[in-house]
Amino acid sequence: MESQFIAWLRERLPPHPLLRLGLGDDAAVLRLAEADECVLTVDLLTDHVDFELSEVDPRQVGRKALAANLSDLAAMASRPLAAVIALALPRRGGMDLAVQLYEGLLPLAEQYDLAIAGGDTNSWDGPLVVSITLIGTLTERGLLRRDRARPGDRIVVTGSFGGSILGRHFDFEPRVREAMLLMERYRLHAGIDVSDGLSIDLAHLVQESGCGAVVQTAAVPVAGDAHRFARQLADGSTPLDHALADGEDFELILAVPPDEAQRMLAEQPLEVPLTAIGRFVAEPGLWQIDAEGVQCRLQPQGWQHEF
Amino acid sequence: MESQFIAWLRERLPPHPLLRLGLGDDAAVLRLAEADECVLTVDLLTDHVDFELSEVDPRQVGRKALAANLSDLAAMASRPLAAVIALALPRRGGMDLAVQLYEGLLPLAEQYDLAIAGGDTNSWDGPLVVSITLIGTLTERGLLRRDRARPGDRIVVTGSFGGSILGRHFDFEPRVREAMLLMERYRLHAGIDVSDGLSIDLAHLVQESGCGAVVQTAAVPVAGDAHRFARQLADGSTPLDHALADGEDFELILAVPPDEAQRMLAEQPLEVPLTAIGRFVAEPGLWQIDAEGVQCRLQPQGWQHEF
Repeated sequence: MESQFIAWLRERLPPHPLLRLGLGDDAAVLRLAEADECVLTVDLLTDHVDFELSEVDPRQVGRKALAANLSDLAAMASRPLAAVIALALPRRGGMDLAVQLYEGLLPLAEQYDLAIAGGDTNSWDGPLVVSITLIGTLTERGLLRRDRARPGDRIVVTGSFGGSILGRHFDFEPRVREAMLLMERYRLHAGIDVSDGLSIDLAHLVQESGCGAVVQTAAVPVAGDAHRFARQLADGSTPLDHALADGEDFELILAVPPDEAQRMLAEQPLEVPLTAIGRFVAEPGLWQIDAEGVQCRLQPQGWQHEF
Repeated sequence: MESQFIAWLRERLPPHPLLRLGLGDDAAVLRLAEADECVLTVDLLTDHVDFELSEVDPRQVGRKALAANLSDLAAMASRPLAAVIALALPRRGGMDLAVQLYEGLLPLAEQYDLAIAGGDTNSWDGPLVVSITLIGTLTERGLLRRDRARPGDRIVVTGSFGGSILGRHFDFEPRVREAMLLMERYRLHAGIDVSDGLSIDLAHLVQESGCGAVVQTAAVPVAGDAHRFARQLADGSTPLDHALADGEDFELILAVPPDEAQRMLAEQPLEVPLTAIGRFVAEPGLWQIDAEGVQCRLQPQGWQHEF
């Protein structure tokens, strides 16, 4: 029952200094301190699309739903402040499921000192839906946008790509701290997180920026999972294909001026590797250059909601 | 296709002075001006629970989803600033449906000068889900909470109750301006909006406030719809039963000190009537007194999510 669940959650949630008013009223009241702008993002995940509830621990689903949202804040170099969480729960076993979803996401919220400001918990005859809205602030270095990449900028990525379906799409670490640290120490022109796929998210970035990009395919950091997944499928796809198209890597693609990129790559200030995989160009579109220097169009591939 | 829909929406949305960055990036950036606190609320509506998509114009669904959320801000006496909107669309006809949902909610957003800051638009094989998160600010008179009703306060309500299922649950006006005006002119102790039902939401209010309430049933403003609905059902239920239990009236219940209540009722400062329907008492629980002065327990009834 909804009121039982809310009672459980109020008991479970530690008080948070940002919350003047948390669960239990019609809305939450969040202290913003000196912030004069806030960053807002929402992500909705559904059973059979973003996860298969029958095949996973619901705690992983809860964690993923929050982590995917945090990745969107990372893509803005925003510091997370608070979350509101809306659930549509299958009628049968909904209370247990809700508890497990929260048990999965609360440790991540604590890790990022995120206030759980409120929620809406519903039951219905449909499959599980989890929708999380996050609010964040900007650091003093400002905002990392999608639409500011300039020709000549280097394409720099965090981590490695491909085959996240083998498990990484549940236990990835959103690049929140990494984005804030990079924004603090380097001049970044633009950035996006890779949720749909390295090539399609790069296409989103160049489209918003009104430019193009050339990817050196030999430089793309291919995840071990991409190799394993290509072997498992044995359908002729290569590990590189998976790195470019699989999605849910939740790494960052950054547009960095050449001198800054050089410094950043030399310093490697993160625990996760930074790699330059090409450069932005004036002509709109995506190209790839292979190890032999042959250049051709790169067809953006990845996840798109068709409706 | 998601990108086509986003292109349509970006075209459709007027620029909003509060939005430094709207649709098209990983997150939106909202100007908060001098606000040092914000109010956050989320509401998730699902097909077959909150509406029957096959029986209504999707524009009504879009409007209701936003209006129900606005009602939560009204219950805090908060001024709406911005919305983020997450959709799970059935795969077939999803683009048309998304357009119609927005066509229903956008006029209401414009009416309240609300910025549509962003969203997440998904497709899946399940029924329609609409989840809206609103962010608002507080006026100088502060916050209308649930947990501050005091014994002796009058129970004052806006509008009338019952039978909203006949249509009012789609075209109700959220009491946003009314709440701000009352908060500005009168000393209010507590408030809640009636989404689940007059008696159950009053029960929520007294539970949070640690007190009780006595309702004079003869004073409860019974909507014309409650009479019509009772006649239609012809199951022995009375119009008053419907006024107390139906829910989705989206009117306000306020706890007002007696002198203030007297002034407020005499002045009737709203277009919608204000009615005193009883008083708060020290002993926890709900009671009703009928026209003959007979007092008995009032069983809170209304909508509860069972899971």
